Amino acid sequence: MRLALAQINSVVGDIDGNAARVVDWLERAREASADLVLFPELVVTGYPPEDLLLRPGFVRAARAAVDTVAAAAQGITALVGAPLFESGKLYNACFVLADGAVQTVYRKHHLPNYGVFDEDRYFEPANDQVLIDLAGTRVGLTVCEDIWIAGPPASELGGAGAQLVANISASPFHVGKDREREDIVRRAARENGVPVALCNAVGAQDELVFDGHSVVVAPDGEVLARATGFEEELLVFDLGEAGPVAPQVDDLEQMRRALELGLHDYVSKNGFGDVVIGLSGGIDSALTAALCVEALGADRVHGVSMPSRYSSDATRGDAERLAESLGIEFREIAIEPMVEAYTGALREHFAGRDSDLTEENLQARIRGTLLMALSNKFGWLVIATGNKSELSVGYSTLYGDLAGGFALIKDVYKTDVFRLARWLNERAGGELIPVSIIDRPPSAELRADQRDEDSLPPYPALDKVLEAYVELDRSREELSQDGFDADVVDRAVGMIDRAEYKRRQAPPGVKLRPKAFGRDRRTPITNRWRS
Amino acid sequence: MRLALAQINSVVGDIDGNAARVVDWLERAREASADLVLFPELVVTGYPPEDLLLRPGFVRAARAAVDTVAAAAQGITALVGAPLFESGKLYNACFVLADGAVQTVYRKHHLPNYGVFDEDRYFEPANDQVLIDLAGTRVGLTVCEDIWIAGPPASELGGAGAQLVANISASPFHVGKDREREDIVRRAARENGVPVALCNAVGAQDELVFDGHSVVVAPDGEVLARATGFEEELLVFDLGEAGPVAPQVDDLEQMRRALELGLHDYVSKNGFGDVVIGLSGGIDSALTAALCVEALGADRVHGVSMPSRYSSDATRGDAERLAESLGIEFREIAIEPMVEAYTGALREHFAGRDSDLTEENLQARIRGTLLMALSNKFGWLVIATGNKSELSVGYSTLYGDLAGGFALIKDVYKTDVFRLARWLNERAGGELIPVSIIDRPPSAELRADQRDEDSLPPYPALDKVLEAYVELDRSREELSQDGFDADVVDRAVGMIDRAEYKRRQAPPGVKLRPKAFGRDRRTPITNRWRS
Repeated sequence: MRLALAQINSVVGDIDGNAARVVDWLERAREASADLVLFPELVVTGYPPEDLLLRPGFVRAARAAVDTVAAAAQGITALVGAPLFESGKLYNACFVLADGAVQTVYRKHHLPNYGVFDEDRYFEPANDQVLIDLAGTRVGLTVCEDIWIAGPPASELGGAGAQLVANISASPFHVGKDREREDIVRRAARENGVPVALCNAVGAQDELVFDGHSVVVAPDGEVLARATGFEEELLVFDLGEAGPVAPQVDDLEQMRRALELGLHDYVSKNGFGDVVIGLSGGIDSALTAALCVEALGADRVHGVSMPSRYSSDATRGDAERLAESLGIEFREIAIEPMVEAYTGALREHFAGRDSDLTEENLQARIRGTLLMALSNKFGWLVIATGNKSELSVGYSTLYGDLAGGFALIKDVYKTDVFRLARWLNERAGGELIPVSIIDRPPSAELRADQRDEDSLPPYPALDKVLEAYVELDRSREELSQDGFDADVVDRAVGMIDRAEYKRRQAPPGVKLRPKAFGRDRRTPITNRWRS
Repeated sequence: MRLALAQINSVVGDIDGNAARVVDWLERAREASADLVLFPELVVTGYPPEDLLLRPGFVRAARAAVDTVAAAAQGITALVGAPLFESGKLYNACFVLADGAVQTVYRKHHLPNYGVFDEDRYFEPANDQVLIDLAGTRVGLTVCEDIWIAGPPASELGGAGAQLVANISASPFHVGKDREREDIVRRAARENGVPVALCNAVGAQDELVFDGHSVVVAPDGEVLARATGFEEELLVFDLGEAGPVAPQVDDLEQMRRALELGLHDYVSKNGFGDVVIGLSGGIDSALTAALCVEALGADRVHGVSMPSRYSSDATRGDAERLAESLGIEFREIAIEPMVEAYTGALREHFAGRDSDLTEENLQARIRGTLLMALSNKFGWLVIATGNKSELSVGYSTLYGDLAGGFALIKDVYKTDVFRLARWLNERAGGELIPVSIIDRPPSAELRADQRDEDSLPPYPALDKVLEAYVELDRSREELSQDGFDADVVDRAVGMIDRAEYKRRQAPPGVKLRPKAFGRDRRTPITNRWRS
């Protein structure tokens, strides 16, 4: 039997467009003489459709689109993910299309409702086994989570005669997820004693990236075929033979590709043309701009330097050199006139008070306002440049450096910002990002001689605490037992908890880590728990 | 049997404080000679604790606090809500405390996972019936949703010998929810042929308000006792006799009280002192300021007028008159110097371009920046003044009028803003809010002779469409069939869908409606569905 895994990029809500895309790739699979073609989970609606699923008209349109696709399924069988409304209940379903019609439907058993998932909110779980026979092969059907949960249905399909287990997925990315997913597929193949083929979605939806990496694994754990990550692909494979196996890439390269795909899809699916970035001469904005150029092309990226009296000649020069190196449009707008206007307007109100965080935030907000003005006038999307370390501890200004439509690197720790910048230079074979930017100690330059380390623990120590506290839910006590410096833990945990209100108003950005802020980590703002 | 319903206000995460509060009210119930006292659902952790429940240390601390409370339960039986971790699973539990110890535990059967609820994310459902005997009365236990779902366990407790059904709840408010809740209690009482006593939480947590309105209903549907709404109360009641029945209040008064409680608790639970509000002379900021004064007292509220060249003498005068009427501190900061500074800085960049929305947003962002500067310098919480109609269609400026820590009236339609303003004046017996503010046609005053109705459908028509589309999930097609003006529908629906990205960055505010923006309505930003 010849199998095709159509790892394609849907757009949430674009039911007609998605159906047309499915038909297009179905034709390609037929041209490749495939007997069976798998499409991703909920490919017709895009994943996750969230509360669109509560609108009856949306569910009806998705069902009608399945029939449209079915009409094209001639001389090939297709597994297509879409919602199914039946007897007053909604299911996350895998439609089996052949001979121009829906032949049967498998309904997902295990509904993930943790992390970024909310499937219990929309769907009913089912428990019927579905196996289909084609080209002399018996195929057992599953949808995504069904093979992640040990036991039935994933463990029982071999016993029911399956010679292949098919899984349609919309499995979102975090660093290393491709390997975790293959381990799961490997377990299912071993348990059933038959190959398992997983077709994953690719593309980005708001904060989530779907990384593709569709795969077929033999019962002995060997990878028989693997699609590449982060792009559309039709993986064609003859059962019982060796297929194409795309190489795996390391963590840094995964992050780079996920960030670029996440940005590209947010911009293009929302109909934006160009983006604009405030270039401070620091490493966060440098990395952000470099990623934007790779994702969109230099002619769609605009850099703006907005120096103040605290900006050094070195950072101003670096901002301009970066723009040159990236080949992007560059302009400079000094913020001093606005600083003076605000300072004058507030003088009598602030009389007798020392300069403090207020004056620092003011500069950041003037920059945010200027970027938004450029955005309004030219239709450019503002890309915010804050990283995960800053966002964790609240070392950022609401409506200032947090202003923007998309916060590209919000899930990248500062230590990874450095690693990624070096990796981009290594790939480019030169100083895509000037080395002076990478080597300079981080500073917000909002007052004289400021350094991040005046206000924060050193990033290597901070990032380790953040990972343990934010992503692994270790308590303050446990962190001390883990050997973390008690002072760093106390400072970090207090700052993280107090900054929740800022994160709520931050723009969306690409999820890269097992637990990002956002739908992964639902923490109350009003919260007196301090452990 | 003498029953006490302790309708108290917990703080999420404040386990020790909540436990102390429970012990305090338990003493009061004992002093009132109650045999049984009910506390709200998850009273020990506060509701909803969200992802704090994923931290083992948090769950352990809550369990330890139950033992602390149990030690105080002497000469009285108490029903106390807290999480229970047992055999690797977490339950939403009702602990029965008596004779200084935990006597037994009921675990919630039905876990709500729709609207604002995510209980499937945290808890396992249980299915064991628990009845306890005390003071010669057999009492069947339930937790919140257990009586909202028809059938067991709520329908079977009478058959199992219950002479009273007790329900501990954390049931959030929307307008009219007290009546809906009583209908549910009435059904449960009728089905079981015994009285049902529901003890609800009171107080606010981020966007949610818990309205209290604890109630005891007889099998014939008569309300035997009812606590008041929106404040703590110990409702004491002898089974078989008539108890105190607080009167119900109308929708407007409910909205007023919910808004004031929501603001009060957000401010006090997060440790803020004063608040600051930009006063435009328009009705949104006037209503917001008046509600803040009622919730916090005039000495904690600061008003700032920030006129531009487009501000009329009438609105400037009204802002000042409002501050006088409310007795709040007032200051004026003209924004013209900042407008000129920005305009000058952007002149060469905007050369050859017409004035447009950019210049309007700029004014709003200057005001947002000034308010945030006052907030930073004096520690005041900025209260944003946008209403639900504006937030729905995106008629608001990110980082401008949407800037703030709390958006008090974000779930109040513009037509209700007018009704509430008149109601506040009626209660005050005079012009708390100057009538000239209420009578003036709405304008953002961001350009010459601007009126909201130049850009938006008239509010009475718009609000009806918003309610149907946003809260009832009616499609564009259905709205036309419902008889709505097709042009209004098309304009409104397009604007609503496109404004999702703004709502994501809006501050939290009080949920008043059956479906608010936020956790009630989870809509993708990237979304091509347009029906």
